[in-house]
Amino acid sequence: MALTVVGSVAFDALETPFGQRERILGGAATHFSLSASFFSRVNAVGIVGGDFGEAEWDVFRRHTINTTDIEIIPEGKTFFWSGRYDYDMNTAQTLDTQLNVFETFDPKLSEASRNAEYLFLANIQPTLQRQVREQCKDAKFVAMDTMNYWITSAKDELVKTIEAVDCMIINDAEARQLTEEPNIHKAARKILDFGLQALVIKRGEYGATLFTKDEFFVVPAYPLDSVFDPTGAGDTFAGGFMGYLASQSDVSTPVLRRAMIYGSVMASFNVEKFGTERVDALDYPEINQRFRDFKRMTHFDEIPFERATSVG
Amino acid sequence: MALTVVGSVAFDALETPFGQRERILGGAATHFSLSASFFSRVNAVGIVGGDFGEAEWDVFRRHTINTTDIEIIPEGKTFFWSGRYDYDMNTAQTLDTQLNVFETFDPKLSEASRNAEYLFLANIQPTLQRQVREQCKDAKFVAMDTMNYWITSAKDELVKTIEAVDCMIINDAEARQLTEEPNIHKAARKILDFGLQALVIKRGEYGATLFTKDEFFVVPAYPLDSVFDPTGAGDTFAGGFMGYLASQSDVSTPVLRRAMIYGSVMASFNVEKFGTERVDALDYPEINQRFRDFKRMTHFDEIPFERATSVG
Repeated sequence: MALTVVGSVAFDALETPFGQRERILGGAATHFSLSASFFSRVNAVGIVGGDFGEAEWDVFRRHTINTTDIEIIPEGKTFFWSGRYDYDMNTAQTLDTQLNVFETFDPKLSEASRNAEYLFLANIQPTLQRQVREQCKDAKFVAMDTMNYWITSAKDELVKTIEAVDCMIINDAEARQLTEEPNIHKAARKILDFGLQALVIKRGEYGATLFTKDEFFVVPAYPLDSVFDPTGAGDTFAGGFMGYLASQSDVSTPVLRRAMIYGSVMASFNVEKFGTERVDALDYPEINQRFRDFKRMTHFDEIPFERATSVG
Repeated sequence: MALTVVGSVAFDALETPFGQRERILGGAATHFSLSASFFSRVNAVGIVGGDFGEAEWDVFRRHTINTTDIEIIPEGKTFFWSGRYDYDMNTAQTLDTQLNVFETFDPKLSEASRNAEYLFLANIQPTLQRQVREQCKDAKFVAMDTMNYWITSAKDELVKTIEAVDCMIINDAEARQLTEEPNIHKAARKILDFGLQALVIKRGEYGATLFTKDEFFVVPAYPLDSVFDPTGAGDTFAGGFMGYLASQSDVSTPVLRRAMIYGSVMASFNVEKFGTERVDALDYPEINQRFRDFKRMTHFDEIPFERATSVG
């Protein structure tokens, strides 16, 4: 089934201990749609400037992503973000943000985008997220991201938006901040109580946890000797997660669990190279191999302990 | 098979946001042997003072722990530790340490203790650990703990001890400090290269990871709404891990994986009440139920993604 994503398309400048890039393709909608494209048909909704070139469009084309709804403002400039990571690769230090055309982003959805059964609202202003959600009347599963800035500056609007979706995909600090609850399990229950079917809490190098009303499911991060560039890991996770869901016939618990694994698989590839480089070059055998790696690193046999035979 | 543990037996004074205790039973060998006793016959080797009373011995008796090798110095006082936890329950602030009789601890192993097939060297001076290891000539699987103090003050001795055992069970900060390697997977390989068969790295509220030469296995922490008292969680983990190993006929990969789960199960109970209270009162149905909970929160079906059927 089809999947629509609404969010930023950007140029990033990055400095990490392993190298730097002055201008590479980035943005939440970019990372998300590239990742999701391995599993589903994706419509990307965003905005770019006249500086967005053929090399960038080619990345979307290679993955058959529908870019009809990426608006082009020929006289404007594309959203630009510049950041630096130190050896602790968990958090970026923002050096520069130039919103450019993104400042007046007003998502316009074509019929194809509006009719998608699955919808992901990447991190944009919560009121805009809700307007998009309302345009997609037939969406059967809608997920959203947000960030600390909106939790602080637009909490009421944000809560109204959460109440209009089925799933949130956020990091643990955001979950704690949103609920003012330090214990992550209590925080998760408070967020589910906004009426969500599912909540995914991302925990960086510690993996991600899925919470539903009755249970939860923990996925560790894939072990990597070096994380090269974590930019876009969260959106790549969301892309694998939502892309896989959209490829299945229902959103059941076993499907959600596998979606968590595919999200983790895709995120683990994303951080191995700069920007979109690694995911752009991925193939299915690599994805399925890493999926099996996740199984090997988490599964065990269930043999209940029998006291009588062993102690004494 | 039999399991011997050498380490501290202590009185603890604790302050947590949930209450306080002025003098309760504690110590690494105590928490370890209590936990291990659910799976194997345990010999505890330690030292206490004349202040160690019937109420304390009763805890060991209830679990049929062999205390022949817990030396009693009638005129001395038992090791005393006092600590405080704030709302971040991951790290204790030590308020007072009185080594007392533990200062001159010189482990003397009876034949029963020496002949055990499984041995755990809790956190004591590395040279003492090695002397004990050398006394247990027939031990087929020996694991050890250590702490930052020995890594700083006795690293050469510590490395010699590591080279004489089969397994280490330490926390992530210790693994990084020991190897001076920030990446935990690289740190793990360096430690395995001392000649270990297995390495367990404990990560507090994020669970624990088992590393062997060819693979690794990740267990999340059991989700608890409140961690009441984390004192002894690491030793309780080690007790469940080693106790389960000692109940099985070999130390194979599937057995090590289940041992990781039983260690995590026991640790999750330990933190639910003060000191030894919760583990002392445990029963097998509770243990097996939580083992199954771990399975439910980590397992997923393996269905490789097929592109042709779903994308396009």
